[in-house]
Parts: sequence; structure tokens; C-alpha cells
Amino acid sequence: MLWFTELYSGEGMELKATGLTIRAEEAKRVKTPYQELLLLKTQDWGKVLVLDGAVQTTERDEFIYHEMIVHPAAFTFTREIERVLIIGGGDGGTVREVLKHQPKEVELVEIDREVVEVAKRELPQIAGKLSDERVKIVFTDGREFVKGKEEIYDLIIVDCSDPIGPSKVLYQEDFYRDCFKALKEDGIFITQSESPFAQNRVHKKVVKELQKVFPITRPYLAFIPTYPSGMWSFTIGSKRLDPLGVPPSALGKLYKELTEREGELKYYNPEIHYGAFAIPNFVYREE
Amino acid sequence: MLWFTELYSGEGMELKATGLTIRAEEAKRVKTPYQELLLLKTQDWGKVLVLDGAVQTTERDEFIYHEMIVHPAAFTFTREIERVLIIGGGDGGTVREVLKHQPKEVELVEIDREVVEVAKRELPQIAGKLSDERVKIVFTDGREFVKGKEEIYDLIIVDCSDPIGPSKVLYQEDFYRDCFKALKEDGIFITQSESPFAQNRVHKKVVKELQKVFPITRPYLAFIPTYPSGMWSFTIGSKRLDPLGVPPSALGKLYKELTEREGELKYYNPEIHYGAFAIPNFVYREE
Repeated sequence: MLWFTELYSGEGMELKATGLTIRAEEAKRVKTPYQELLLLKTQDWGKVLVLDGAVQTTERDEFIYHEMIVHPAAFTFTREIERVLIIGGGDGGTVREVLKHQPKEVELVEIDREVVEVAKRELPQIAGKLSDERVKIVFTDGREFVKGKEEIYDLIIVDCSDPIGPSKVLYQEDFYRDCFKALKEDGIFITQSESPFAQNRVHKKVVKELQKVFPITRPYLAFIPTYPSGMWSFTIGSKRLDPLGVPPSALGKLYKELTEREGELKYYNPEIHYGAFAIPNFVYREE
Repeated sequence: MLWFTELYSGEGMELKATGLTIRAEEAKRVKTPYQELLLLKTQDWGKVLVLDGAVQTTERDEFIYHEMIVHPAAFTFTREIERVLIIGGGDGGTVREVLKHQPKEVELVEIDREVVEVAKRELPQIAGKLSDERVKIVFTDGREFVKGKEEIYDLIIVDCSDPIGPSKVLYQEDFYRDCFKALKEDGIFITQSESPFAQNRVHKKVVKELQKVFPITRPYLAFIPTYPSGMWSFTIGSKRLDPLGVPPSALGKLYKELTEREGELKYYNPEIHYGAFAIPNFVYREE
């Protein structure tokens, strides 16, 4: 029997004095060229993927993160989604949810090949769709990959880890500007944007940088039990389409079509679509 | 230096294999006639009140629980709120938020005198309003207290601990029926209703029992970092007034008046009022 504790860092929790503790039956450790990967087998959370000491995904609650990084933006399109770029997301969960919107092509740009290998082998329910023929996996630096691309993507999704280690460059304004250029004229950008409770300053910085680049910026929230504080955020940057501007009747119809075709979703629904954009006062008030 | 870990119980986490870990500088333990009380001094959370091993309130995130157990129901009244009954809530945070709505009288019925004493001494920012002249504290069993009361309260708020130990009787249909009787014809009942993620069955049972008693039943959610999974719920049982039926313009006006008078709230706002009632699909689907 093993006890794994992730002690949270972040400005409110600088001293690593708070964390999530999980009992594990087994742990495998791999040192990749980019990070330390840990795979835990647990009773409460199923298999758990940990990168550099931070829980990335668990079989039990991964559906929340993966549905919520995809559907609020994807359901904002009332036309077909053709081309999607995912940066990070090597576990494949984001790909699985994006494919429910029937895009023609999904490019997944993951820097660490080992993450994809481990996910395919150990987390088939999450990674299974990585072998779909519409999916093209490129093992390279997402920051470099997006440079120079022009108006080709409907959606760009940044499914990255904390702004330390390999993901640091994915939190910067010039990266967001390159993503803006790479999007079609009605394209939408989404990034996970950390915990507004545990990493309040990082969250606000992401929103502020995106506001400099995109005419429409919309942060939203989801409950993710295994992430610091459980209060997690994503932020949409959009050129023209507003997720809060989708008429409920149109959204209801799209949602019904998708769930009839792909099966029920486990977290997202039309009420969540609008409700997730309600942000508690303290988030943008705290210094 | 001390490390405190609350290992969560609950059907998804039956084996106490998951928990929150907090580093403390100091801990005081008191055995009351009803429960074991622990007061921690911590760096991340300020002072933390723990009952029978479960975190009840922390100076850092208590505002979320206390605002959210009060305001969604209290802002559903467009008339004045006269008389409020709080069952449990010995730390005083719920009283503090209720008083912002200018009731004539608040009765707090707490079974454990020691909780009130410790809160007054150690947590003045939470407990300070317990000495307000409109507040009457009764140290007795809330279950018994409410029996036989008829149509006298505008609001009944059940601010109780988990359904083990002294709070068990506050999760039962006959208690809800007595509360129904004790409410005025447009009165509203609210109870905290556990984590829909970590204690899914308990949460659903509360909602189901309330549905048997009240014509309008509305569960809603809030992010509470120090409670199991961070995904917490409250449930409103109402005779006539629907929190989702308050017109946004009326709510906006009431909210503005209250915050101008009492100072800004830190979590609740009109968007949260409506958004909190959006519930992820899995909550009522899981068995």
C-alpha cells in the first residue's frame, strides 16, 4: 500500500502546505526526456497519471476536464467544425470529446511521446480515439508548431500542464497571437487556465493576456476533484462567436443531435453551458 | 509542524483512500459531550475548525459556504424577511450572512455549546455577529425544537455536519415535514446537501426526501475547496417561491441595495444565483 500526496503550489499555497492524498495499490515511474511520469493504480480514482508530481488525469474524474475543455467552445459553432488543433493533451481525452463533433481532421501536437505511449497502453478508455483515422499526432513543441500558420483552424485547444516545465511557453501573449493568426475568421481558442482559487494570479494573467489578443474572452469553471482546490477554469478567446450568445433553442438542438449520435455526456449540458460562465466575485477582485 | 489529513468517507470513497492534507502550526483538541472538536492554526487556511475529523470551516474559504447557504434563498424573497431559524451553524457564519438581509429575528439552534464558545473565542470574523441583538441562541436539539411550530418562519436553514453523529436526524423526511409546517405559506427551507461527487447517494437521498415534502425543490452547487471533492451542494425546498423564477431585474436591484448597504459579497452575485442551479449530468444519473 502506498500513499501519494500532491502538495499544491501556487501563490495562495506557496509553501506547499495543502494537498490531495490518494492511496495507491501500485505505482510505476518513468523518467521521460521532458518530465517525470508516474502511473498509480488506485481504488478511488482508477488509474491516475501524474506528471512532475501533479495529477493530470484519473479514470474516475477525467470526463469532467475533457468534456469541459471541448464542449462549451465546440457547441458555440452552429456550422460544421472542420479542422482542430490540440496542443498537449497526450492522454487522448480531449481528442475523444472533439471527435463527437465530427471534425474532418484533428492534429494533436504533444511534446512528450512517452505520455501518448503510456496512455495508449494503460488508459485505453481515455486514449482509445488517438488511433482514429482523422487524428494526426505530431510529436513536437506546440509553441513552434503554431508559428506561421494562417486561418486554417476552427478550434485550437491548449490542453497543457501547469506553467512550469515544458508548458511555460503556452501561457504567453505571443503564443496567443500566433494562435489568433492560425484560426479562421470565426475560429475559437480555448486553454485550461488553472485554478482561480489556488492559482488566482496565474488564472488572471491568462485571462488578461487573452483579452489583449481576442475581441471576446470568456473564462468559465468546472468542478475537478483531483485538481488543486477542485475549482478549475478554462478560458475561451474568440474572434467573433460568443459562447454566451448561442440561442438556447439552437444549443438544445445541437446537444440533442450530438448525444443521440454519440451517447450521453456525463458533465456538460445546456444549463452547464451558460451556468459555467458565472464567476464568483472574489476571482477578479483578489490581488 | 503537524500534518492533518481528513480522509473522506462516502460511497465513492468508502475505504477512506482519498483526503485533504493540510499542514498546521498548532492544534487544540476538545472533547465535547457531542463530538471531538479540533482547532488548527494553519498557514494556508487560517484557523480551521474540525469536528469528528471533518473540516467544518476555515478562515480562508468559509465565505463560500456561508454566502451560498444563505443568499440564493434569501434573494428569492422580494418582500422583507422577518424571522429566520438556523439549525446547527454554531460557528456563526450563517448568522452573519443572514443579517445582511435585515431580518427582525434570527434563532440559532445549536446542540453543542462548545462549538459556539470556541468560535466566539477563536474565529471572531465568523462568529462576531452571534452577539447581535436580533440573534437568539438556543442550545438544544434542532430536531426537537422545530416540532409543533406552525407558519412562523420565512427561512429555515439547516447548517449541519455529515449524516453521522448528532446531525443524522436532520436528513430525514419527518424532520423536513416539521420544517414545512414551521414555515410561512411562502417560506423557504435550505439545507447543505453534501457532495454530489463524493457522497452522491446521500445527496440524492436529501433531494428525493425534500421532493416528497416541498412543491419546489432546487439543488445547487458551490466550489468549497476544503470539503470532500470540492464540489458541494445545497438544496432548497420551497412552498411557492422559485429561486429560478426571480426576474433578473428584481434580483439585480436587491443585490445592489444589499451590497451598497453591507459591503460587497465575495462569492455570490446574480450570475451565480442562476448558474449555481446548473447540475452536471452524472449527478442524477449515477447509481
